Amino acid sequence: MEVEIKFRVDFETIKEKIEGLNADLIREEFQEDIYFSLPPKHLLRIRKITNLGEVILGYKEIKDERNEEFDEIEVKVEDFDKMRDILKRLGFEEDVWVKKHRYVYKLGRITFELNRVEELGDFLDIEVISDDIKKAKEIIWETAKALGLSESDVEPRLYQELLEEKKKIT
Amino acid sequence: MEVEIKFRVDFETIKEKIEGLNADLIREEFQEDIYFSLPPKHLLRIRKITNLGEVILGYKEIKDERNEEFDEIEVKVEDFDKMRDILKRLGFEEDVWVKKHRYVYKLGRITFELNRVEELGDFLDIEVISDDIKKAKEIIWETAKALGLSESDVEPRLYQELLEEKKKIT
Repeated sequence: MEVEIKFRVDFETIKEKIEGLNADLIREEFQEDIYFSLPPKHLLRIRKITNLGEVILGYKEIKDERNEEFDEIEVKVEDFDKMRDILKRLGFEEDVWVKKHRYVYKLGRITFELNRVEELGDFLDIEVISDDIKKAKEIIWETAKALGLSESDVEPRLYQELLEEKKKIT
Repeated sequence: MEVEIKFRVDFETIKEKIEGLNADLIREEFQEDIYFSLPPKHLLRIRKITNLGEVILGYKEIKDERNEEFDEIEVKVEDFDKMRDILKRLGFEEDVWVKKHRYVYKLGRITFELNRVEELGDFLDIEVISDDIKKAKEIIWETAKALGLSESDVEPRLYQELLEEKKKIT
């Protein structure tokens, strides 16, 4: 189980704080994700990591109300356009694109994903892989507090939802 | 467009004849395909080529009555089990496994796929990639006749269909 909490942050400030915890910068990614329409709490996307030349098909089921607990399967695929074409032919409809500049840090069992998301702003996902969800959330919150983050900084909505809401407004 | 005609053959006899035409042996494959249930004339499968360590997701739409004209999209994926799991989670049901030992030969624009199919026997697919379907079939038949094959050797049914029929009988 992937347990993660998403916070709204100021990119530069939080980057300094994460590095101040001596977390290791694992990689930098420029991601372009296309999401397909699925029933609520189910996600299907193809991710292109443009700077690394990788393409990943990802499926997620969300297990809780606050979008913090994910059952996830990811598989690398060779070609973005062909994968997209197959899903379209199978009847899946494209929903939104999510484009991010991401820094990934590791600190013990914790993964930090610091994201600058096009049209949406800056976010930090703090993630722990564990089947002990209670314990995972304790670790996440302990770390969040060390970074000066609180409940009021939490963004429970998915990027997909935030972009859909934005589309409706504009 | 992938144009191909499938013939029932005797493996060793036809192999000698293909080699007698000076076709080039391109590769040998041991394939394990899992097919998923889709509406008629639509195919979805994951192919594991065990001897080459390759996995390919394939989608086909059949454009004619005799299963000779295919619109095909294939994409390599990194992991058979994860791809299978994603398709199952998306609601696709597994139908049949098709297991083959295949020799692939090339002769100009023609591809020969000589298959020993588990539970079904020996088959030769003669294939030409072309949008001129009439011309492609002329080339295929000219070659088939040079190999001593005739209309009575044609097997219009898909492997998937042949195996489903077999399942019903046994």
